[in-house]
Amino acid sequence: MHRVRVRVVEDALDANNTIARANRDDFDRHGVTVVNLMSAPGAGKTTLLERTLGHDGLDGVRAGVLEGDVQGSLDADRLAHLHIPVVQLNTDGGFGGECHLDANMVRSALPALPLDELDVLIVENVGNLVCPAEFRIGEDARIMVSSVAEGEDKPLKYPLMFRACELVIVNKIDLLGHVDFDMDRFLHHLDAVHPGVSVLLTSARTGEGIGELRAWFAGLPQRVGAAV
Amino acid sequence: MHRVRVRVVEDALDANNTIARANRDDFDRHGVTVVNLMSAPGAGKTTLLERTLGHDGLDGVRAGVLEGDVQGSLDADRLAHLHIPVVQLNTDGGFGGECHLDANMVRSALPALPLDELDVLIVENVGNLVCPAEFRIGEDARIMVSSVAEGEDKPLKYPLMFRACELVIVNKIDLLGHVDFDMDRFLHHLDAVHPGVSVLLTSARTGEGIGELRAWFAGLPQRVGAAV
Repeated sequence: MHRVRVRVVEDALDANNTIARANRDDFDRHGVTVVNLMSAPGAGKTTLLERTLGHDGLDGVRAGVLEGDVQGSLDADRLAHLHIPVVQLNTDGGFGGECHLDANMVRSALPALPLDELDVLIVENVGNLVCPAEFRIGEDARIMVSSVAEGEDKPLKYPLMFRACELVIVNKIDLLGHVDFDMDRFLHHLDAVHPGVSVLLTSARTGEGIGELRAWFAGLPQRVGAAV
Repeated sequence: MHRVRVRVVEDALDANNTIARANRDDFDRHGVTVVNLMSAPGAGKTTLLERTLGHDGLDGVRAGVLEGDVQGSLDADRLAHLHIPVVQLNTDGGFGGECHLDANMVRSALPALPLDELDVLIVENVGNLVCPAEFRIGEDARIMVSSVAEGEDKPLKYPLMFRACELVIVNKIDLLGHVDFDMDRFLHHLDAVHPGVSVLLTSARTGEGIGELRAWFAGLPQRVGAAV
C-alpha cells in the first residue's frame, strides 16, 4: 500500500512541475514577477502584506496578491482596502482541504488575475512548513516567514522549507523580550541549513524592517530580469 | 490527473482507518489511553509536555510520548530528562517528508513502545493545522494547541482541525498583552466551529494552567473507560 502511494505522489509531482512551467511561461509573457510567500499558520504573512503594500505601496511597482487558504476569504478581505488586485484561492476541493498550493490550483486562478496590470504577483501560500516547499507553482522567488514566537529550532525541524527560499523573514521581533528566542542561535541553525540566504528582521506591528521589505519587492523584477 | 489523485487519496484514507482500528485494538489490549496532540509549528506542544510530565508527572498515571517530526529528534531529546518512555518517529521516508502522522507510521513505532508500562501515551503530531486532522492514528482523544501569537482567526481558517478535537488549549497566554489577540473573539470563532468544546488557557512559560492540564491527562483513562 505504502509503495503504491509513494509512486503516485511522484507522478503528481512530475505533473506539478509541468504545470508550473506553463504558469511560468504565462507570467513571463505578461512580464509578471511572481513570489511564493510561505510560513507556518499565524507567522504574520497577511499583516506583512498589509503593511508592505499599503500607503505608497512599492514605489510605482504594481503589485497583486493571490491568497491561498483551505477555506474562506478572511485574508483576501483584509487586503481589500489596499485597492490592488486580490484573488482568493481555496484548496478545500480535495478531501479535507489541501495543505498547500500546487501549480494546478494557481493555474486555475490565472483567468481571475489581471496579469497585464501587474509587475509583481505575491502568492500567499497555505500556512504550513512542510508541503508548500515541495510544490513549485511557477514562481521566480520564494520567501519564508518565521515568527520569533515559533522558536529558534524551526530551521532544523523543517529544513526543506528554509532551504527552498531566497529570503527568510524573521517576523514579530517586537516580541523578542517576551519569548524564549535566541536570535544568534536561530541564525546559526539557519546558516547550517541554508548558508548565505538573505535574512530580513521585521515587525509588522511596529513597522520595523517594512521599508526594507518594500525595497526587496520593488527591486525584484529588475533582479530577476538581470538573472535571466 | 487531479481526479486520479483524489481517488488514490481516498483509498489511502480507507487503509488508514483500517490500520487505526488495529492500533486501537492493540492500545486497548494493553490498557493504554492514547492522545493525539496537534498544533501549528511552534505553538508550544513540546514545552507543554515538558512542564506537564515533569516533576511529579501525572500523579501516578504512567505516561509515555511518541514524538512525530519530519526529521531529527530535537523534541524527543528535549523530553529525555523526564525519564519516561519517549520514542521519536520521523516522517521523511516519503518524498520530501510527510506533513502529518498516519496510522501506519504510528503502527511502525509500536514495537519500540513499552505499552505494558504505560497508562497514557501522548502522540505529538507534526506541526500542521491541516492534514493531521484527517488521519486517525488509533487515538482515544485529540488535543489541539493554538498559541495566542498565531492570531484569533485560526478556528475560521482551519475549521477541521478545531472541530476534530476534544480539548482546545490556548497557549502562550503570557503574551496576551503583547500581541493583537482578542480572547473573546477567538472563543467566539471557536464556538462557531466547534460548539461546546472544552478549552484550557495555558502558559508553558509561567506555568499557568499546567495543573489543570495535568489533571486532564491524569483523569483521561477513567473518562475514556467510563465512555466505553
